[in-house]
Amino acid sequence: VGLGYWGPNLARNVSASERFHLTALVDRDRSRLDRLSGTYPAARTHESLEEAVAVGDLDLVAIATPVSIHAGLAKIALAAGCHVLAEKPFTATLAEAREVMELADSVGCRTFVDHTFLFTGAVRELKQQIVSGELGDFHFVDSVRINLGLFQPDVDVLWDLAPHDLSILQHLIGRPPSAVRAIGAAHNPAGFVDDVHLHLDYGSSFGAHLHLSWLSPVKVRRMIFAGTRQFAIYDDLEPAEKIKYYDHGVEFDVRDLEARRKVLVSYRRGEMRAPAVPPGEALALEMTNVADAIEGKQEPVAPGSDGALVVAVLEAASRSLAANGDQVDVNAFE
Amino acid sequence: VGLGYWGPNLARNVSASERFHLTALVDRDRSRLDRLSGTYPAARTHESLEEAVAVGDLDLVAIATPVSIHAGLAKIALAAGCHVLAEKPFTATLAEAREVMELADSVGCRTFVDHTFLFTGAVRELKQQIVSGELGDFHFVDSVRINLGLFQPDVDVLWDLAPHDLSILQHLIGRPPSAVRAIGAAHNPAGFVDDVHLHLDYGSSFGAHLHLSWLSPVKVRRMIFAGTRQFAIYDDLEPAEKIKYYDHGVEFDVRDLEARRKVLVSYRRGEMRAPAVPPGEALALEMTNVADAIEGKQEPVAPGSDGALVVAVLEAASRSLAANGDQVDVNAFE
Amino acid sequence: VGLGYWGPNLARNVSASERFHLTALVDRDRSRLDRLSGTYPAARTHESLEEAVAVGDLDLVAIATPVSIHAGLAKIALAAGCHVLAEKPFTATLAEAREVMELADSVGCRTFVDHTFLFTGAVRELKQQIVSGELGDFHFVDSVRINLGLFQPDVDVLWDLAPHDLSILQHLIGRPPSAVRAIGAAHNPAGFVDDVHLHLDYGSSFGAHLHLSWLSPVKVRRMIFAGTRQFAIYDDLEPAEKIKYYDHGVEFDVRDLEARRKVLVSYRRGEMRAPAVPPGEALALEMTNVADAIEGKQEPVAPGSDGALVVAVLEAASRSLAANGDQVDVNAFE
Amino acid sequence: VGLGYWGPNLARNVSASERFHLTALVDRDRSRLDRLSGTYPAARTHESLEEAVAVGDLDLVAIATPVSIHAGLAKIALAAGCHVLAEKPFTATLAEAREVMELADSVGCRTFVDHTFLFTGAVRELKQQIVSGELGDFHFVDSVRINLGLFQPDVDVLWDLAPHDLSILQHLIGRPPSAVRAIGAAHNPAGFVDDVHLHLDYGSSFGAHLHLSWLSPVKVRRMIFAGTRQFAIYDDLEPAEKIKYYDHGVEFDVRDLEARRKVLVSYRRGEMRAPAVPPGEALALEMTNVADAIEGKQEPVAPGSDGALVVAVLEAASRSLAANGDQVDVNAFE
Repeated sequence: VGLGYWGPNLARNVSASERFHLTALVDRDRSRLDRLSGTYPAARTHESLEEAVAVGDLDLVAIATPVSIHAGLAKIALAAGCHVLAEKPFTATLAEAREVMELADSVGCRTFVDHTFLFTGAVRELKQQIVSGELGDFHFVDSVRINLGLFQPDVDVLWDLAPHDLSILQHLIGRPPSAVRAIGAAHNPAGFVDDVHLHLDYGSSFGAHLHLSWLSPVKVRRMIFAGTRQFAIYDDLEPAEKIKYYDHGVEFDVRDLEARRKVLVSYRRGEMRAPAVPPGEALALEMTNVADAIEGKQEPVAPGSDGALVVAVLEAASRSLAANGDQVDVNAFE
Repeated sequence: VGLGYWGPNLARNVSASERFHLTALVDRDRSRLDRLSGTYPAARTHESLEEAVAVGDLDLVAIATPVSIHAGLAKIALAAGCHVLAEKPFTATLAEAREVMELADSVGCRTFVDHTFLFTGAVRELKQQIVSGELGDFHFVDSVRINLGLFQPDVDVLWDLAPHDLSILQHLIGRPPSAVRAIGAAHNPAGFVDDVHLHLDYGSSFGAHLHLSWLSPVKVRRMIFAGTRQFAIYDDLEPAEKIKYYDHGVEFDVRDLEARRKVLVSYRRGEMRAPAVPPGEALALEMTNVADAIEGKQEPVAPGSDGALVVAVLEAASRSLAANGDQVDVNAFE
Repeated sequence: VGLGYWGPNLARNVSASERFHLTALVDRDRSRLDRLSGTYPAARTHESLEEAVAVGDLDLVAIATPVSIHAGLAKIALAAGCHVLAEKPFTATLAEAREVMELADSVGCRTFVDHTFLFTGAVRELKQQIVSGELGDFHFVDSVRINLGLFQPDVDVLWDLAPHDLSILQHLIGRPPSAVRAIGAAHNPAGFVDDVHLHLDYGSSFGAHLHLSWLSPVKVRRMIFAGTRQFAIYDDLEPAEKIKYYDHGVEFDVRDLEARRKVLVSYRRGEMRAPAVPPGEALALEMTNVADAIEGKQEPVAPGSDGALVVAVLEAASRSLAANGDQVDVNAFE
Repeated sequence: VGLGYWGPNLARNVSASERFHLTALVDRDRSRLDRLSGTYPAARTHESLEEAVAVGDLDLVAIATPVSIHAGLAKIALAAGCHVLAEKPFTATLAEAREVMELADSVGCRTFVDHTFLFTGAVRELKQQIVSGELGDFHFVDSVRINLGLFQPDVDVLWDLAPHDLSILQHLIGRPPSAVRAIGAAHNPAGFVDDVHLHLDYGSSFGAHLHLSWLSPVKVRRMIFAGTRQFAIYDDLEPAEKIKYYDHGVEFDVRDLEARRKVLVSYRRGEMRAPAVPPGEALALEMTNVADAIEGKQEPVAPGSDGALVVAVLEAASRSLAANGDQVDVNAFE
């Protein structure tokens, strides 16, 4: 459902997957349906999702429309007994996300969120290192995701770019932040917030900071993970070495905490290592995981509940932004 | 006064300047005096500043000790009728800074702060472009100043690294921020704050953000200036092209502000230009400016009052840090 | 003709061009024809070019087969009165190139070579600067085009990679080198030469040097143009600033050429400038130029004769390679 | 001897070494002697080496004059029973190098050449990996050492920059090339060759290629070592990761060498690893090695004979340059 920018990628991957048949294409706009129909002549076309599910042969509905109508479409699909894969952000509000998930529970269907990054070689490599304890505990995470444009018609820079970082952090850390602070501003006549600094508080002196901007002359996509044992840098613009581990550290020989001058600080500058990160299309892996999860063979990597947690953080961040940076708790599921 | 890490650089530049004679070296530690005495046999040595000024032949006292004793030494020098050049941060507290400046006024002496960066080719180039209006007004400034270490014995990362950015911003913008928010944490047993995000609010939707860290595996020294007409990037680690101007922009054709979807956004990706930034030692230029200012020939580039404004921001930032990011007003001179 | 790696790109651009209709697809391999037929249902399919031209409705035949059969196919097309656009290298030998061009002359048809790089924004920008005299005369050109693989089944690294550089140089300089020297070796059991240094002698102390390799751990695509007035660097891997001009120079104040010590050398380090290079698909521009050239409205940017000159240089380079670097004259058209 | 650009570095390291006393400073220019005398008041000063050695208390004479007078000075020192450490290039001709070494043999003194790079952490790291077999055999070495200037008064770019690469290669490979080809040109009115490509033939399909230039707008210092097991890159401009190992490779499954199309080529893109290269001043290590070698405790890392081999290659390269790239054998010691 939704054949704008991202929908055709989903269609291509559904079609290419051995686990799915691309049965129907849905869009309000007939010309888009006609265009994609040439490529997938076996799929029927519909101008509404109601019409498409009425045929009764759909297992999974993938939603790639503007976020404002995600929840409504998801509920139509679930009511018809279909599993749902929704583009990110999962829904426009946390309340909507809850309604979708409650309906999914009651009808016994699965929901998934298209957090594509989690299926990239880079994030899978990072996940494995973190699980194995190679990085130690986190000191902090610092992410810079800035570039010139592209201004989106229906979301600000926070809802556009932060879902990437928030989904990666949710996947790697396993829990949402407890509170957030966001400061940003709109530097355009339309009033879209286009530059944001978002601080995520995970408690116990561990925090993450995201700089998200549509107003940077240079493009940066860099996450620094400062661990107690190693550092990692994930630079998504590096063509070959996206992940680098640094065996660096700081050691303290604290003789007398009262007297800072007696603290001996030494630095360890060890090896840097960039593992081979296998290429391969993330969406293809994602389709396999979705199929496996539906059949109960594998846990879902990106269940709808993770999408809802990201929406909870975004919603708290928007509230903090409106309050010029005041702290807002993330009460995902009061 | 103070012949540790930075003092010998000051001694070298004072000695090399045609405008000054290096008359006396002062340090509590006799072995340091002896070491430097070999290089500057014409300068006398003293273990206290009181002793040095008592001779009565000093015009300027340059202070490069730990910050905690700056104010005390400055007052000794001023009381003896000497002008003062103090290392940054100017003093340990805003109250101290005020006392120093009031004394300077009453004795008719000048104070200077060693904001060396202001005399680099890069910052002078930026200043000129900003004054000429080439960048337009500021949308925002974003600075990343991170590296591994060096932990300082008497200051945290905020007081260690932020003076660089704050002095540059003070010089380029001409006024201090009205309020700040700082979030940071200590990831070491000694409890030094070693990673900070500092937001500076200049009012009218213009803000600056600084990331300061001693805990990064990579070194970054990059300031982005987003102007209404052009962007500039100052990357101090670039060997040749430290300043780059980007003639990029975003234009909005806002037909109907109610309906965001009707906003037409277009991007202008123009030329990037890296001017030749002349090399040359900043400290040498600084010594000339100090001499000229004392003789009334030139305005001081970095008067003590600028040092005090930086201390005011640091003090507010420390308060915000203690309050976990709550906003704190900068009341430089109530 | 030829629907392997590059052919589908040609088909897409022919089809998208307003100046051409994609009338027929030709490949020996029926499965390839079937696959592309789905995308271009209006085009007929043929397993031989003879069959395709026999219908009598073709104006232009585009050849994207292995180089060994370019000339044979071109002659079939020309004999049927069709213009020809051949992939690079234009032919496998200079003798073949001459036969093709003589036939083209005798039947009054045009030949073109697919030197796609000439239609990129980067090369067009460079061409304009060179024509306008901004760079001055050339001191030298130095190109590094190295990466890991991809080993080609029917050509060595020289015939695979050098056509890019040679076509760009032919376009920018306007004449082929008078002599070449090539040194290289095969570091693989199959005996393909996979690392080559090729020196091109243009006379009058102006030369160009190409390093071409399939055996580099890092990918480099960088051409340095040293001009008497400015330098230019063309780095094709830069996402945004592919062309950089450096207003650098060296000035000599030669008082006494006998006594080198009296030569005063001074360096001018001026501005670096990276113009906005417009994006846009080069092949689309190329199709327009081909159509215009056929209709006599524009000069062809990459006529078959330029393809022949590149083959002449490649042939001389192969001879030098076999002679371990001895100089070989390029006698393009004795 | 010789207190121009490099001599003071030697003086500082001799003075700082626990193994030597800095006894005498020699330069024709009295003002240079006076300047350095302030820093090393314990050393006597002489305007000629003859005068200095006549005192009879010198063990080692370090020569940092223009290369044209190296041999003459070395012979004076050796005749006086002193060991000799000469700046690179060791001598201006191979004949001179032989004379110096024969004299050293006859008087029983040691000669050393100041190939400082061999004592850097980076080259020591590379040496260890090569000795341990981690890289396998060499396919080739490719070095790019280019920048703008600095034109030297008494040597061309070949004799100025190639000694760095040639000494490193001599150290890592253990033998000089058997033949060379050099192509270059002078692009300045004084006629200094300022851009050279030098090919070194080590036999058995193993070669090295050096690009040396004073006419590049960008500075590059990068050596690629293509080994049969791994690649290495040594980038001397990288502040932290100067050496990178790439576990990349190409594998060939050659079923039928006659039919290239049946060769299956597969690529292995493994981990990249940048070891921690310890900082530390190379010259300090060099002084220790010189002292140890004189006392017979360690083999010299850079004996004069290695300096002579480098001169042999330079001399052959100059002959090839004059013959416009014709091959010239390196007959180091006929």
